[in-house]
Amino acid sequence: MTTQTSTITPPDADVHAAALERLDGLAKPLGALGRLEQVGAWLAACQGVCPPEPIDRVRAVVLAGDHGVTASGVSAYPSDVTAAMVHAFVSGVAGVNVLARQHGATVRVLDIAVDADLAGVPSDVTAHKLTRSSSPIDVTDAISRELAERAIAVGAEIADAEVDAGAQLLVLGDMGIGNTTPSSALIAATLGLGAEAVIGRGTGIDGPTHARKLDVLSRALDRACDDEGRIHDPVQRLAALGSADLAVGAGFLVQAARRGVPVLLDGIIACAEALVAADLAPGAPAWFLAGHRSTEPAQTHALDALGLEPLLDLGMRLGEGSGAMAAVPLVRSAALLLREMALLTDLVGQ
Amino acid sequence: MTTQTSTITPPDADVHAAALERLDGLAKPLGALGRLEQVGAWLAACQGVCPPEPIDRVRAVVLAGDHGVTASGVSAYPSDVTAAMVHAFVSGVAGVNVLARQHGATVRVLDIAVDADLAGVPSDVTAHKLTRSSSPIDVTDAISRELAERAIAVGAEIADAEVDAGAQLLVLGDMGIGNTTPSSALIAATLGLGAEAVIGRGTGIDGPTHARKLDVLSRALDRACDDEGRIHDPVQRLAALGSADLAVGAGFLVQAARRGVPVLLDGIIACAEALVAADLAPGAPAWFLAGHRSTEPAQTHALDALGLEPLLDLGMRLGEGSGAMAAVPLVRSAALLLREMALLTDLVGQ
Repeated sequence: MTTQTSTITPPDADVHAAALERLDGLAKPLGALGRLEQVGAWLAACQGVCPPEPIDRVRAVVLAGDHGVTASGVSAYPSDVTAAMVHAFVSGVAGVNVLARQHGATVRVLDIAVDADLAGVPSDVTAHKLTRSSSPIDVTDAISRELAERAIAVGAEIADAEVDAGAQLLVLGDMGIGNTTPSSALIAATLGLGAEAVIGRGTGIDGPTHARKLDVLSRALDRACDDEGRIHDPVQRLAALGSADLAVGAGFLVQAARRGVPVLLDGIIACAEALVAADLAPGAPAWFLAGHRSTEPAQTHALDALGLEPLLDLGMRLGEGSGAMAAVPLVRSAALLLREMALLTDLVGQ
Repeated sequence: MTTQTSTITPPDADVHAAALERLDGLAKPLGALGRLEQVGAWLAACQGVCPPEPIDRVRAVVLAGDHGVTASGVSAYPSDVTAAMVHAFVSGVAGVNVLARQHGATVRVLDIAVDADLAGVPSDVTAHKLTRSSSPIDVTDAISRELAERAIAVGAEIADAEVDAGAQLLVLGDMGIGNTTPSSALIAATLGLGAEAVIGRGTGIDGPTHARKLDVLSRALDRACDDEGRIHDPVQRLAALGSADLAVGAGFLVQAARRGVPVLLDGIIACAEALVAADLAPGAPAWFLAGHRSTEPAQTHALDALGLEPLLDLGMRLGEGSGAMAAVPLVRSAALLLREMALLTDLVGQ
């Protein structure tokens, strides 16, 4: 299996220009809606129509997996929390479920690489399971190159299914104890950064755990990166430092962009996947919007490289797609303001 | 008529503590919901119950008025836009209407001091009209002390009516060409700041307009303030540098706090009113939350003095309550996460 790496067609530039013109004609001072103007014009361009349609069908895809680095004590939580949280998603009681219900969105959780055989969950949760956990990246590659390629293809299948089902906006989230370590490593190896530049506090780790995480990250990058601290081949990057669930995320993002459906990214994990997606399919990030600024420094490096500025900065660090889901109403507002506000010319004579 | 200046009873500290304890027991890392945890605990304390009730009934009150300073050319728009926008609110086609519809909230616009006799609007829009425009504050007091006191009382009446009608969360917005000038002046005269420290670009003014605005602001502050650049008496401050609509806003905020209903503040105008409300009724700001960071520097001074940090920072500068209305889903999220997320103890054994 080879991975397709063709360039992605960007959102429609003519529609983008028309949306900016319409925004300037609305009953408000020029530019007075701030970021919502940029988002509105981007949505119009993504949809290819101005004003954009209301964003009624929002779908969150949460990719769950465990990570071999947890054996080194890099997280505040044991890895069996991952499986417990998949059950919580299915029961609708996790943070992202609460936010999705509020916003009339739906959540699909997928066990990609949870280190457990999940019982009592709907069959579609485990339908795309690829492996149980990854190998510890400080010692060896996380997964084989073959599995990375397969995972990318599975991510594309998942995106296709969601697009075919009518999703207008996709939210990409994650669940996996330990997953900020491989995500930080992917961002470091994409941008040629050192472990100190990308390490963060994850779910809230203490000093000794932070020291272990730094050690694991440093050794992983030393082991797998070239002299510039990079791994140029994005598939090899996913195999060496990522995981099956991260590779699924990258493939999902590429295919969503290829199908022309905008994606709202969550935190560091989705942004790591987006950086890899940009190498797999140049131009893909033009279809991405950032929902929330993570407390992880690596996310900021990734966002800068992607040219994205998050809509929210609320200090959230829950994962699950929750930061992006919290931003969904703002994305909808951007579309609705373009559709429903009066034009200045309508007000004349009132 | 004398203005009541008693201290406001704060939100319930015991319930606040119980909410923080519940947050720490939810199925998430400690503190992982960031600002939404603080907001959730505050809502619980405001309601006096943990977890808080869902915030179903949100009401925006938009106070409209014209300002004598517009004759000096301090705005990018002519003052008859104020009346036109009141019609737009009534027609449901202004920015805040669009956002309110999206969020299932309602908007009440009140002509407090529009410099026109509005025809063809529902009678409740003009039921509390107090005057037409204010006097130019660089030359003379904006309104009489008597009118300021009456306006504060009218604001309290308006708040009482909304609380009696069942509002769980109030949004305070504004409409009035030129209104960033008196608002900036009120903030300056509350905090002892100079005109240069508080002046902003309003609806988007050019260089010459900015110079005129700075001149008007400087002369107004010189005329009305003491040697420290302050006016200590809040009623006199509203009369000298404010307007009837700004005084109504201050009275509204005091009474909402006194009735124990939380208020989501919009931009510089609402924050100026909140600063005055804090002097009219010490403790009132404990009932306020800031929705959006304005591009006006005076708002940041006011927020710092009030101890408030806005939920959003999207570069909006529309007024109308729109920045606060954009933040309403986040406030609701804070309540719902506290109510509906699983407890860690629920997940054990799954």
